[in-house]
Amino acid sequence: MGIKQEAARLNTRMRQENPLVHNITNYVTVNDCANALLAIGASPIMADDTLEAADITSISSALVINIGTLNQRTVESMVLAGKKANELGIPVVLDPVGAGASDLRNKTTGKILEQVKITILRGNLSEVSYVAGLSVSTKGVDTSDKDNNKDARLVALAAAKKLCCIVAVTGAIDVITDGERVVKVSNGHPLLSKVTGTGCMTSAITGGYAGTKEDAFTAAAAGILSMGIAGEIAFEKAGALGAGSFHMALIDALSNLNEETIEEMGKIEEE
Amino acid sequence: MGIKQEAARLNTRMRQENPLVHNITNYVTVNDCANALLAIGASPIMADDTLEAADITSISSALVINIGTLNQRTVESMVLAGKKANELGIPVVLDPVGAGASDLRNKTTGKILEQVKITILRGNLSEVSYVAGLSVSTKGVDTSDKDNNKDARLVALAAAKKLCCIVAVTGAIDVITDGERVVKVSNGHPLLSKVTGTGCMTSAITGGYAGTKEDAFTAAAAGILSMGIAGEIAFEKAGALGAGSFHMALIDALSNLNEETIEEMGKIEEE
Amino acid sequence: MGIKQEAARLNTRMRQENPLVHNITNYVTVNDCANALLAIGASPIMADDTLEAADITSISSALVINIGTLNQRTVESMVLAGKKANELGIPVVLDPVGAGASDLRNKTTGKILEQVKITILRGNLSEVSYVAGLSVSTKGVDTSDKDNNKDARLVALAAAKKLCCIVAVTGAIDVITDGERVVKVSNGHPLLSKVTGTGCMTSAITGGYAGTKEDAFTAAAAGILSMGIAGEIAFEKAGALGAGSFHMALIDALSNLNEETIEEMGKIEEE
Repeated sequence: MGIKQEAARLNTRMRQENPLVHNITNYVTVNDCANALLAIGASPIMADDTLEAADITSISSALVINIGTLNQRTVESMVLAGKKANELGIPVVLDPVGAGASDLRNKTTGKILEQVKITILRGNLSEVSYVAGLSVSTKGVDTSDKDNNKDARLVALAAAKKLCCIVAVTGAIDVITDGERVVKVSNGHPLLSKVTGTGCMTSAITGGYAGTKEDAFTAAAAGILSMGIAGEIAFEKAGALGAGSFHMALIDALSNLNEETIEEMGKIEEE
Repeated sequence: MGIKQEAARLNTRMRQENPLVHNITNYVTVNDCANALLAIGASPIMADDTLEAADITSISSALVINIGTLNQRTVESMVLAGKKANELGIPVVLDPVGAGASDLRNKTTGKILEQVKITILRGNLSEVSYVAGLSVSTKGVDTSDKDNNKDARLVALAAAKKLCCIVAVTGAIDVITDGERVVKVSNGHPLLSKVTGTGCMTSAITGGYAGTKEDAFTAAAAGILSMGIAGEIAFEKAGALGAGSFHMALIDALSNLNEETIEEMGKIEEE
Repeated sequence: MGIKQEAARLNTRMRQENPLVHNITNYVTVNDCANALLAIGASPIMADDTLEAADITSISSALVINIGTLNQRTVESMVLAGKKANELGIPVVLDPVGAGASDLRNKTTGKILEQVKITILRGNLSEVSYVAGLSVSTKGVDTSDKDNNKDARLVALAAAKKLCCIVAVTGAIDVITDGERVVKVSNGHPLLSKVTGTGCMTSAITGGYAGTKEDAFTAAAAGILSMGIAGEIAFEKAGALGAGSFHMALIDALSNLNEETIEEMGKIEEE
């Protein structure tokens, strides 16, 4: 069975298991992350106080850490929750939103990577480049790949080897690798970069797939495929109407997504 | 006049009076809570700093406390605002989101109940069970009643007697009681549990109805009926399209809701 | 070229330049602000920790400060970011949400105005009245001009002279002035006051226009015109359906807005 079939089956499995996903995330896109998780068959819980972060992780099936609007209080919670997840064998997805844009984001990413073993790192080219220690320029947190002169494949491979985790670099072509194996996903639509939070949602639902405790590589592929396919369906339904309708149609598409659609529409290739 | 007629009339009255409702609530669903309040005819204000919480309560007609993403800073604000509300005779709605899921949520719920006289407690079966001191298991904050083997009626009655307040346990069948009188609402739709924040919105609009200073039992019934009926209308309009369209149609339905629709569609029975 | 043509051209220019706009804003409407900025052609970034606020401002083209859900931590960040913006000649938009409603909001507004040179102040009549030192009553943060017995023109002029900045008072008729020049915009629709955050979004997109470094008066006019016209288009498309559909159609309209539509539909008059 190929990676596409495995990813497709994971969708069915997630809808049966409804894994609880603990999100320590930003307040800009948190509502969309919760709704994306519900749409795809998982259960979201958000909790970011140091006094409960580890407790909530310990009853969850996956942890998603997103530094989109981090502050000193929540950074501490991210580390506490991440350590608890490592202790209990719960997968951890890290979305280093805006890494490279400020000293605080850089130090926080460093601090998390130092103290927490990440299972899946998901970011855009500029963010993952930074994390992998390559030079990088940042322009906002909703950038699409204007500068795709950099090779997402090389950056993903370097980051995966350095951090010993699955890395997913999303863009026009998404690259997923564990440092050896490389798959590329060419689903998606440019309009996805005109709605805030589509990256955050991708990380959140990747957490949902990882919460099934299936192989993390497959979980990452399933998360990336799901958002890309949902973007294509949403564009077809509502792309001509505008960004608000497209946003709504994206959640519709996630809620209607199933194994068959992923098998039919998925464009994923293994090297 | 029966409870349904009283609740229906309260909708008209709220739309005339536009009560200001102070919400100390979570950042996941806060936008929906504000829009639900506006849709139903009330005016929302959100303020959670200890330096202004009591000030804002004192110019409001109702206070809604929601512990969905509580932190140490906002817990203090909840208590300060709650005490001010008690002092001024302003009704207080408590939504103990995720009670039972962590020590912090449990202690916070305990602290609020100790220091603030609650007017209406609204939660799902697992949350209210915890608050009433019955054994309970928590799975996320968007659970529907998978384990409705527990009797919502018994839990609601026990909580109402213990806390001397109106208790609304929402689920497939909603139960509202003051410890003596019991009404059951059978409006609603399972899709409501696939959009985050429908519980939070129910608590918020219940605060709006309570802000009219009408009898709190009627206010609770009006809040529960309004969301249940809006869920049914939204399902009819957009249920087949997906969770995003349903979410939007829910706000549409709340904004179009009126006395006549509540009288026509309300399924509420007094024991 | 008149103010309408200048404002219309600014829309095209913003869509070409995609200015990065740093928002320190409230958690109620932050998602809409980000999506409105993306829809109109700008790039949003939200960051409110004292350790990164100034850093993020320094890579941005504009700063938007919104006190909708301020707290002691973010107030400090607003001042740090504002000072950095002043130092680097980056325009600053202030939205004094709920000014007048609490001592904290009043003191915060005072503190910001004392330490930061504001480029554009945008608020409703009650908020700007307070800032201008005129007597005022507050009812929530989503009020429309129920008491338009006060003259928005006089209030705007007084505030502009006092604060030496562009002032935009939005309501049924919007007034924009620098203390000398006065323009009035009569676009918009009453339904805009039934969706939370339309004021916040207006401030955010005004920040986007200001980020082009065009004349700030034109930027303010472009921001106010854009939201007013989008409100009219959204009403025509979805006003009959309800507040949820109208909200979505508003983002659609912002994303479809262009120079031609602004020239065609703009109702702006210079005194």
